[in-house]
Amino acid sequence: MGSGKPEMPGRWHSTAFRVRYQETDQMGVVYHANYLSWFESGRTEMFRGLGFAYRTLEDMGALLPVTDANLQFKSPARYDDYIAVYTRLTAFSALRLAYEYEVRRISGEEEAHAGDSAGSPVLPAQFSSSALSGELLVSGSTSHVWLNRDWKPVRLDRAQPELYQAITAALRQEGGAV
Amino acid sequence: MGSGKPEMPGRWHSTAFRVRYQETDQMGVVYHANYLSWFESGRTEMFRGLGFAYRTLEDMGALLPVTDANLQFKSPARYDDYIAVYTRLTAFSALRLAYEYEVRRISGEEEAHAGDSAGSPVLPAQFSSSALSGELLVSGSTSHVWLNRDWKPVRLDRAQPELYQAITAALRQEGGAV
Amino acid sequence: MGSGKPEMPGRWHSTAFRVRYQETDQMGVVYHANYLSWFESGRTEMFRGLGFAYRTLEDMGALLPVTDANLQFKSPARYDDYIAVYTRLTAFSALRLAYEYEVRRISGEEEAHAGDSAGSPVLPAQFSSSALSGELLVSGSTSHVWLNRDWKPVRLDRAQPELYQAITAALRQEGGAV
Amino acid sequence: MGSGKPEMPGRWHSTAFRVRYQETDQMGVVYHANYLSWFESGRTEMFRGLGFAYRTLEDMGALLPVTDANLQFKSPARYDDYIAVYTRLTAFSALRLAYEYEVRRISGEEEAHAGDSAGSPVLPAQFSSSALSGELLVSGSTSHVWLNRDWKPVRLDRAQPELYQAITAALRQEGGAV
Repeated sequence: MGSGKPEMPGRWHSTAFRVRYQETDQMGVVYHANYLSWFESGRTEMFRGLGFAYRTLEDMGALLPVTDANLQFKSPARYDDYIAVYTRLTAFSALRLAYEYEVRRISGEEEAHAGDSAGSPVLPAQFSSSALSGELLVSGSTSHVWLNRDWKPVRLDRAQPELYQAITAALRQEGGAV
Repeated sequence: MGSGKPEMPGRWHSTAFRVRYQETDQMGVVYHANYLSWFESGRTEMFRGLGFAYRTLEDMGALLPVTDANLQFKSPARYDDYIAVYTRLTAFSALRLAYEYEVRRISGEEEAHAGDSAGSPVLPAQFSSSALSGELLVSGSTSHVWLNRDWKPVRLDRAQPELYQAITAALRQEGGAV
Repeated sequence: MGSGKPEMPGRWHSTAFRVRYQETDQMGVVYHANYLSWFESGRTEMFRGLGFAYRTLEDMGALLPVTDANLQFKSPARYDDYIAVYTRLTAFSALRLAYEYEVRRISGEEEAHAGDSAGSPVLPAQFSSSALSGELLVSGSTSHVWLNRDWKPVRLDRAQPELYQAITAALRQEGGAV
Repeated sequence: MGSGKPEMPGRWHSTAFRVRYQETDQMGVVYHANYLSWFESGRTEMFRGLGFAYRTLEDMGALLPVTDANLQFKSPARYDDYIAVYTRLTAFSALRLAYEYEVRRISGEEEAHAGDSAGSPVLPAQFSSSALSGELLVSGSTSHVWLNRDWKPVRLDRAQPELYQAITAALRQEGGAV
């Protein structure tokens, strides 16, 4: 995935966790706003899988707020479900990032093989999501821009050139998609 | 707005409240998932403005879960900001509903005239949002389907004909848009 | 209420709002953690009632994190209930603050007279809560310490003497309790 | 731990997860209300460790709402920290339950040995928490009563005798504490 010329999506990364009681609502299902927070967990673990702590990016003064979000709700998650969030980059440049997500329910048998919140297994590169395990519940996407601490847009390759090179290299190493 | 033939958006309704400390995140702004919850407050107050408590709809067995959501984030809300959520119907039928939203920051002078969380002033019908007061922060839309308690799609005009007629009548009475 | 010598509680302040859908859980009631956030809304509006924006305190570098919290849950709040949070100071010094809270459900008739989220009516000074309107749902208390931006304890009278004097004066003006 | 005669605390159970971005506030730390939700995750995993899904208890009509909660905040958790919640029973009878909690930050080296959200290792029985690993951030306790679906108190040994016997047996098997 080249700077400014995203050509194809990156690899799917995953993270998994159990639905919390607080995340339910009186319809007996997960309140829909929580999926945006789960997407964020997916991004955090994807970055960790690439070798970066998103926490460190912020400490370096590189913020990545959301500019657009889209969610399609197919089936509801419920309390205590074991959930996998699959995340991949669909665009990366010195100015912006975009991600795609799938939230899936993992059955008992699949749990043993799923990633947990402490790890983020990299799945084989793939251009459809047909091979992702679990029942699809919600899909979505988010777009982001690089901002500095004063909430102003920055070119990451100029503001943080080493960081920019490191992310680019990590993405290149990750798969044939670049 | 006719059954199954939504032609033009309904009137804007509004509700207003202060940003809570819990809604902020470590970037010092409102965490983006909260806007979906604010959209829900907008829907609730719009229904109340039409003469229905959404709570009552659920008690009657008519659920309205979200099937799609889209959000565009233009500028962040901050702790203690006074926020207005403007909401209007863009589609209504026996099968589905769709809403459009604008979240705006109300300045000190405007506060006195804004609706509070206990009321929902109906704004004049309009087809652009250019007349809404406050600084635009986030816009968005959601789509919903009518489900019964078993989470199965229902035609509201058959499952709850009186309710369906009442909503239709309320919308018709509301403005020229129907 | 003197510096370092809190003798009796301050006056009750109130703020009111509707329960949000997101705040419910699958038991059909408000998830219990939300009351801590409601207490915070009570503190924010109490400060505003004294003539300070808590937001401004933080901008001046005076943080007030919670060190202890206690909650007694008597009866659950439900979606769309109209809720009043009553808040008063029970301790104030250059080092710490403590508050007491009552969360009450306001019935339809009482709503017209209740404070909304934009205002914070000061109730008559009183030493029991027997005169507070609404059905008592949850009571509680929180304790806080003054910290600076580096998260270190500070004496407010030395770190921000003007602020300290202003709060003391506002409390003294508020009632015979000082 | 006998019915109605809690004599000593049960064993510590643990669950672990990463702090989510949404859980932070503008002070740059975890918003304090989230610890109540983390306590709930601790209870859920403790029940799972005893061989029960709390989800199943609710399906059987046994609700366990919180009646009292107490929290002591010693040091703040931050975004992306790896957190362990340690939970143990301090009272169990046909009428009520009480739990004690410790929220601790796990360092990098300890992470490999910590439980993840999918498992709940049972720690050796102990009467102090001095052997729990990680830096203590927050401690607390909650009390609960058994209610039926109509939100009325029930004696679990009469309403759900098999369930009551099973929990008692599981607790007895767990350690010398009973």
